[in-house]
Amino acid sequence: MTPPPATQQQSAAPEVLARCRDLVRPALAQAVRRLHPWHAEMAAFSLGWSAADGSPAPGSQGKGLRQALTLLSAEAAGAPAENAVVGAVAVELIHVFSLLHDDIMDGDETRRQRATVWKAYGTGPAILAGDALFALAVQTLADSPGKYSATAVRHLAATLTDLVRGQADDLLFESRPWNGPQAVQPHEYRRMTEHKTGALLGCATGLGAVLAGAPAPTVDALTQAGRHLGMAFQAVDDLLGIWGDPEITGKPVHSDLRRLKKTYPVLSALATDQPAAQQLATLLATGNPLDATDIQHAAELIEEAGGRTATLTEAHHHLDNARHSLESVPLTPAALDEILTLLPFLIDRTR
Amino acid sequence: MTPPPATQQQSAAPEVLARCRDLVRPALAQAVRRLHPWHAEMAAFSLGWSAADGSPAPGSQGKGLRQALTLLSAEAAGAPAENAVVGAVAVELIHVFSLLHDDIMDGDETRRQRATVWKAYGTGPAILAGDALFALAVQTLADSPGKYSATAVRHLAATLTDLVRGQADDLLFESRPWNGPQAVQPHEYRRMTEHKTGALLGCATGLGAVLAGAPAPTVDALTQAGRHLGMAFQAVDDLLGIWGDPEITGKPVHSDLRRLKKTYPVLSALATDQPAAQQLATLLATGNPLDATDIQHAAELIEEAGGRTATLTEAHHHLDNARHSLESVPLTPAALDEILTLLPFLIDRTR
Repeated sequence: MTPPPATQQQSAAPEVLARCRDLVRPALAQAVRRLHPWHAEMAAFSLGWSAADGSPAPGSQGKGLRQALTLLSAEAAGAPAENAVVGAVAVELIHVFSLLHDDIMDGDETRRQRATVWKAYGTGPAILAGDALFALAVQTLADSPGKYSATAVRHLAATLTDLVRGQADDLLFESRPWNGPQAVQPHEYRRMTEHKTGALLGCATGLGAVLAGAPAPTVDALTQAGRHLGMAFQAVDDLLGIWGDPEITGKPVHSDLRRLKKTYPVLSALATDQPAAQQLATLLATGNPLDATDIQHAAELIEEAGGRTATLTEAHHHLDNARHSLESVPLTPAALDEILTLLPFLIDRTR
Repeated sequence: MTPPPATQQQSAAPEVLARCRDLVRPALAQAVRRLHPWHAEMAAFSLGWSAADGSPAPGSQGKGLRQALTLLSAEAAGAPAENAVVGAVAVELIHVFSLLHDDIMDGDETRRQRATVWKAYGTGPAILAGDALFALAVQTLADSPGKYSATAVRHLAATLTDLVRGQADDLLFESRPWNGPQAVQPHEYRRMTEHKTGALLGCATGLGAVLAGAPAPTVDALTQAGRHLGMAFQAVDDLLGIWGDPEITGKPVHSDLRRLKKTYPVLSALATDQPAAQQLATLLATGNPLDATDIQHAAELIEEAGGRTATLTEAHHHLDNARHSLESVPLTPAALDEILTLLPFLIDRTR
């Protein structure tokens, strides 16, 4: 008896991720060693390889979904995974760069139950370490041998531009009102998310295709698939930010509401004409700090006005779009299957 | 009667600089318009094109020595200046990026008699605007047509790596002692300067040669010349930081000593076995804030121990090396003359 497909996929994913991590880790470590020792220490801390004093006390290192998507995209486009390792390294470096700088801008003091880099090392050093990782990512791709390196750098540069644009809009949303004509609309939030979160996953899959020497339609299809996966990921993140279990997320209950973050569930709730939406707007627009009862009430109003359902729909919409993109071009079936195997990991963060 | 060469050169320099500014300005403005409007506003402010509220109230825009060196290097390597405009734009963008981030790290609140960007717009926005300029610089070169774009990106990436390495060492010097075995040695300071200041001027001249399609020895010679010009520039900056006229520098008298900056004059003075060096070390190592009398005394001791002369010698040494580099390869004479015309502007900041 063969097990049903769902179970088969779930059991395959951890091995897929482990195989990709094993391919990328030595190259990533080698890249980090090129940094100034001070920056290498902060990078190792941020990657979960060491404690803030530099000692090897590893934190949570993540599953490596981004790097896996790069390698599997290369395989899907018909090249060995090894060809795309340099792309996976660049994407990981950019990811760490963006964490370092975003944590400063957002004032976040902890990440994965540890101090953020600026909290552990100071703001100036964290800014500079971020810059160093940014430079290293560009240099890693620009200096890589092979005829696709220049195209890969162009993809990375476009991604970086999207990333900073998305982060700018996210920061600017903070000062926009909760209701009235200046309120942030769900479509504006979606575009911000496409830049802030979608771009890097689109870069991960797109670079895999570029470094495989894939034709433009394949690069575009894999890039689009990655962008949609990123947006699905963000929608799930937004759900967890309000209704996530603190035991699993490592963040306080209703974390995003406590911080009055304008995320998709609340924005899509406010954009309806439900009575709950009006009550929610009144509650949020007082400008007073919300106590625990208010926050609980806000979460209920968001759900009542349909914000939770809308966000779940948004996540599935992007997942469907990602699947459609992947099916729109010819890809190596085994690698495509492995990419599809990973999708549940993007959506179900309890694993 | 023809005027003597020196006068001829001095009168030519302003026109050379103006011609180069006229070529670069439209392309730089076009690049800045590609930024998120918020970042474009901060960039325009930092470039001296507008006031902090975005209105066209220009500040001091600088002479444009960096961009001129890029264009003249291309001409010296036998290509039209237009070929290197994209390189000049990238170098200017990186320059503004580094000002934005360095001013945060160094806690500098004013620059050229105006608020720094982080002071005018906030730390988070200034970090992000710096990132946006960094990304735009890479994208500008990576997306430029022509067969030298990939090589140009590699040069830029190497420069960025040097820049962050130099800034890291400069920050780390702050916590090193004034005397004893852990004291910062002049050669360490020189290496830091080569990275922090030399690299960008070396990138300016080197990119001009790269974009002209010059052979490797010419690229190397122009890069080296630029690096030495940057180091000469830094040595002069260090002299002005202690003995500069506040009317001209726009900074308080003895500015670098007030901030206890470890610059070449003081480090080279401390590295001697002069009695004045020992008095200087005692004065600086107390750890107490220095009052105006102490600072005046420190400046005198630095001069007595030979720190001022050593720094002037350092500046001339790098200028000589720059000239030797320029003479080591065949260059178009007219363009080489124009480069040489600009050198006094690097050294004499009173013009």
